[in-house]
Amino acid sequence: MSDDRRDLDQLSVNTIRMLAVDMVEKARSGHPGMPLGAAPMAYVLWTKFLRHNPADPNWPNRDRFILSAGHGSALLYAMLHLTGYDLPLSELKNFRQWGSRTPGHPEYGLTPGVEATTGPLGQGFAMGVGMALAEKFLADTFNRPDFDLIDHYIFALVSDGDLMEGVTSEAASLAGTMGLGKLIYLYDDNGISIEGSTDLTFTEDVSRRFQSYGWQVIRVADGNDLDSIATAVANAQDEKEKPSLIMVKTTIGFGSPKQNTGAVHGEPLGPEAARQTKEFFDWPLDQEFFVPEEVLDHFRTALDQGREWEDEWLKLLDQYRQNHAEEAARFERQIKGELPPGWEEHLPVFDPADGKIATRSASGQVLNALAPHLPNLIGGSADLAPSNKTTLKGLGDLGLGRPDGRNIHFGVREHTMAAMVNGLALHGGIIPYGGTFLVFSDYMRPALRLAALMGAPSIFVFTHDSIGVGEDGPTHQPIEHVASLRAIPEFTVLRPADANETAAAWRLAVENRRPTALILTRQNVPILDPRRLQIAEGVGRGAYILADTEGQPDLILIATGSEVHLTLSAGEKLAEEGLSARVVSMPSWELFTSMPQDYRDSVLPPQVKARLAVEAGVSLGWRRWIGPEGDVISVDRFGVSAPGSEVMARYGFTVDHVVQRAKALLDRA
Amino acid sequence: MSDDRRDLDQLSVNTIRMLAVDMVEKARSGHPGMPLGAAPMAYVLWTKFLRHNPADPNWPNRDRFILSAGHGSALLYAMLHLTGYDLPLSELKNFRQWGSRTPGHPEYGLTPGVEATTGPLGQGFAMGVGMALAEKFLADTFNRPDFDLIDHYIFALVSDGDLMEGVTSEAASLAGTMGLGKLIYLYDDNGISIEGSTDLTFTEDVSRRFQSYGWQVIRVADGNDLDSIATAVANAQDEKEKPSLIMVKTTIGFGSPKQNTGAVHGEPLGPEAARQTKEFFDWPLDQEFFVPEEVLDHFRTALDQGREWEDEWLKLLDQYRQNHAEEAARFERQIKGELPPGWEEHLPVFDPADGKIATRSASGQVLNALAPHLPNLIGGSADLAPSNKTTLKGLGDLGLGRPDGRNIHFGVREHTMAAMVNGLALHGGIIPYGGTFLVFSDYMRPALRLAALMGAPSIFVFTHDSIGVGEDGPTHQPIEHVASLRAIPEFTVLRPADANETAAAWRLAVENRRPTALILTRQNVPILDPRRLQIAEGVGRGAYILADTEGQPDLILIATGSEVHLTLSAGEKLAEEGLSARVVSMPSWELFTSMPQDYRDSVLPPQVKARLAVEAGVSLGWRRWIGPEGDVISVDRFGVSAPGSEVMARYGFTVDHVVQRAKALLDRA
Repeated sequence: MSDDRRDLDQLSVNTIRMLAVDMVEKARSGHPGMPLGAAPMAYVLWTKFLRHNPADPNWPNRDRFILSAGHGSALLYAMLHLTGYDLPLSELKNFRQWGSRTPGHPEYGLTPGVEATTGPLGQGFAMGVGMALAEKFLADTFNRPDFDLIDHYIFALVSDGDLMEGVTSEAASLAGTMGLGKLIYLYDDNGISIEGSTDLTFTEDVSRRFQSYGWQVIRVADGNDLDSIATAVANAQDEKEKPSLIMVKTTIGFGSPKQNTGAVHGEPLGPEAARQTKEFFDWPLDQEFFVPEEVLDHFRTALDQGREWEDEWLKLLDQYRQNHAEEAARFERQIKGELPPGWEEHLPVFDPADGKIATRSASGQVLNALAPHLPNLIGGSADLAPSNKTTLKGLGDLGLGRPDGRNIHFGVREHTMAAMVNGLALHGGIIPYGGTFLVFSDYMRPALRLAALMGAPSIFVFTHDSIGVGEDGPTHQPIEHVASLRAIPEFTVLRPADANETAAAWRLAVENRRPTALILTRQNVPILDPRRLQIAEGVGRGAYILADTEGQPDLILIATGSEVHLTLSAGEKLAEEGLSARVVSMPSWELFTSMPQDYRDSVLPPQVKARLAVEAGVSLGWRRWIGPEGDVISVDRFGVSAPGSEVMARYGFTVDHVVQRAKALLDRA
Repeated sequence: MSDDRRDLDQLSVNTIRMLAVDMVEKARSGHPGMPLGAAPMAYVLWTKFLRHNPADPNWPNRDRFILSAGHGSALLYAMLHLTGYDLPLSELKNFRQWGSRTPGHPEYGLTPGVEATTGPLGQGFAMGVGMALAEKFLADTFNRPDFDLIDHYIFALVSDGDLMEGVTSEAASLAGTMGLGKLIYLYDDNGISIEGSTDLTFTEDVSRRFQSYGWQVIRVADGNDLDSIATAVANAQDEKEKPSLIMVKTTIGFGSPKQNTGAVHGEPLGPEAARQTKEFFDWPLDQEFFVPEEVLDHFRTALDQGREWEDEWLKLLDQYRQNHAEEAARFERQIKGELPPGWEEHLPVFDPADGKIATRSASGQVLNALAPHLPNLIGGSADLAPSNKTTLKGLGDLGLGRPDGRNIHFGVREHTMAAMVNGLALHGGIIPYGGTFLVFSDYMRPALRLAALMGAPSIFVFTHDSIGVGEDGPTHQPIEHVASLRAIPEFTVLRPADANETAAAWRLAVENRRPTALILTRQNVPILDPRRLQIAEGVGRGAYILADTEGQPDLILIATGSEVHLTLSAGEKLAEEGLSARVVSMPSWELFTSMPQDYRDSVLPPQVKARLAVEAGVSLGWRRWIGPEGDVISVDRFGVSAPGSEVMARYGFTVDHVVQRAKALLDRA
């Protein structure tokens, strides 16, 4: 390599560093330490390995790069700007400001080239594992001899903090088990965390740990040594059967007077230290956001190179279309997120005459009915598949030898399941789902929240949804969970009342391409009559009338999920006593809230003040629907270990108790 | 060893097994697989090592035993019954039934001898690490030459599922870093999870992984070999500097026709398979819950032995009292959970004249003011101490050489921090706290829920409590978190308005000995006047009047935390325009709910329908306090990366906007 080239490399690396420093200084907020230390590895990766097309951030076969250490966003924005993404220097100057595309932590959907929203540590690591699984599934499904339609890497830059988080351990163990060789993570091993040296808290042997998971571990002794980094990445790419962790020894805040301290992690250097840092790198002191022309030219070759790569791939796709027309059509539809015409006709219809069925079982039937027609519907459970009814029968296991299996065994790793479902969803081409008991949604919340923030089409199947769980007791009986999930903005929660509402809920989850949770019973519930009720439309509206009286009702009974059939029976009993009750099923607060006021008023007429809600969960939030004069039968304490029907009865979930409370409500009115 | 003794050992092991089988069969619900496989290790541990006194489950220096694999509760109940705890056979016969003390998963506080509520996997593992840290802290603090007042082990039985959970990885890494040699965990290595062989999901090298964390790993090749188990535990006890993992190869459902399958994990064997299992163990078929007399006699020697151990310890304590009177008094007070007289006089009082101060900073001042007077107040942060202001200045670090340090560095491990705080609390003798950003409470939810379920005196410090966080953006700005925490039953959430409310909140958290979360600002807020307001009493009541008008107010402004000062200013502005507003600070919904109706009505008179709530979080639940005619200024969408004051203003948290919405409310009325 010529000295000139070496100089250009170094100048490029320092440009990244100085852009990051200037961004943080101008914003007076941010994290300069990581970009200063990790700029060399980002530079090597992005200029020598990353196959991407800055002009088309959505090219399906691009390598993915995830900044799991999302606090180093300035580094990522510098790379995106320099390599020619639609992120002008003005955006870098607007770092962390209102209306910018350069927020404090990278946000998917806001900034072109950002593959995942990161910042909460460990999430990027685990989402990348989901993306690698998506890559594997799509490659196994669509690639043909001479047609490697999907063949790309998932790179990430991860930090000490990422490696300390539990979700990372879960993801790493599963990635090792699955042998996801396309996964290449660079670890910014700087030995410093916010509270000081990692010796305080993190003396584990990371290399040994990742080897124990089945990863290849490669060390780079000097994070400023570009050649060593390049060799390491090349070696990682050569290993096809194992994920690779490249441990790169770096100095946090390299070149600044605060280098190698916690202080440089999350605060601006300050004008004086920033000046000294620029001096260290022999950088002009009189220009902010300085990009040497030759550096920009050098980085911007990514545009031509990217276009070339994508053009080649488009040619390949064209030939694939000619040789494998059917697969090509399917591939393109899936990548666009489109559904095959008429898919919804395969949704099962359940007949009330068939007796009672748990909504988890109905969900299993729906999944299995849809699976043949939605070939990219893949997912599984966190080791509760027999209980969650998430198995696609006869369709094999994914990630373990069988090339086109569709069942994912996540192990007892709820958190990484949720993050991986997000990664599968973000990759594109997949309709992913993950299931566990509702009570364990608590383990998944950081990833559920990210799904909502990203608008990722992730589907979560939560069964065993109330004290109706029974004998397993309060540790396994969700109480506050439906309310807690409803609290997450831009997240759709559906608690269907029966098998047919469950089918409708699945339809919405698949069609809406938004993060959705299905809340399903362990216990059997009666089937609503699809010949009499507009169930699919009703579920889509979030709430609808199941049973009504002529004229204005005396009261409205509102319920969700397994409590709906109780209110239907209660309504009948009340009618026998000459009291007229409307019964409303309200599977989704979010969908009902999004309906026009006149529809909402037609379901819950403002003049009917006597309203009784019935839901086997906390009452939090119900006042909104029942008004000041209403009442709610809820569970505002922990459950008890006993047979589910007994617990339900003792907690007031009986027809008689609903009738009694309804009458008390009417008496008060 | 004599053959007789061997026979008795084997008979004892089989008694445990058959009791567990009978419990599950009678309940027609439960998990027979684990007890059948793990009975030998439980037997060896409980009869040859565990220093406990069944007659006094609260003996402070007892060894702790945690069944982290809580689904094997039948095993634990069998041990408790057999060794003489107050758990008669009738309770075993009532397994998983309403009103029993033998719930589906072990529940702390319900069953004598149950040290922690377990079932959600990984929690027991991590709580044990907290207990081991408590043991270390108390031993380092109180032990003197010849006086090992605190000197006990923490044993746990852990499963594949425990080891797959992320929280376990976090806890194991930290336990290794801290060198917690009193920690001895037996791993029921049965190779089976619910979905099938662990080869599906869990091919990692567990031994290598735990060695990488700094643990001693010992293998027992045959889980039925009592001598090997005993040797392993003895070797574990000999290792003082490292925690030990004993990997015991077992057969799930050993002796049953379903052994070594997922099917035996979580379902009763059924009558026929139960019969065959009893035949395998040469057990009488005509008796349920059969305990051979010699077996019971053998187990019940634990009572005499336990009494002897505790008596010896009481004598030691007596001598300690004579030699170290002051320490003894302190020790006994701490173990009883009592506070030193007058401790609360050291709570700082903040003067409004001192200007604005963030409640996180006030919290730091309170902590440091109390620390000298509450010597068992220990805690820390998940690598955000400088931001959370959780450091006890000059009081050293715990777990890392310095014997009596009081600051715990949890690393970037929020989940295990919460579980460890629970373990510290359950151990007794400690007032533990753990801090992070509020948005990361999501990572901790399973442990927060367990704190509530157990009623553990765990204190959680959540700072950076709203969109006021600013530049870090939506990934770091909590929106739904306060509501989600309020949803947890039996959990107290306090969002103080200023420095003085923060001091009052800390007082409650320390005094109430209930799980408590303090929700604190990043940004500065003005100080309320303690000379004019009864702040401590007001906070204790959950809500109170800060500013009022003569006679009935036109409207009530209700706010929490950093929004309180906005409503105070708004109230003044409204008064200038001749509108009379009462201003209510409502730091805790839970405490306010627990007040008598007449107090609640005195703060929020039912006749005043115009009520405006102001809280920088989701509106979920506020309808309860504002009524149908009220309004709420809330945040029902994700935040934005920009300076905090700008985000607050753009989201409507300004005095002018509060005034405007208040007037609109009055106009409508």
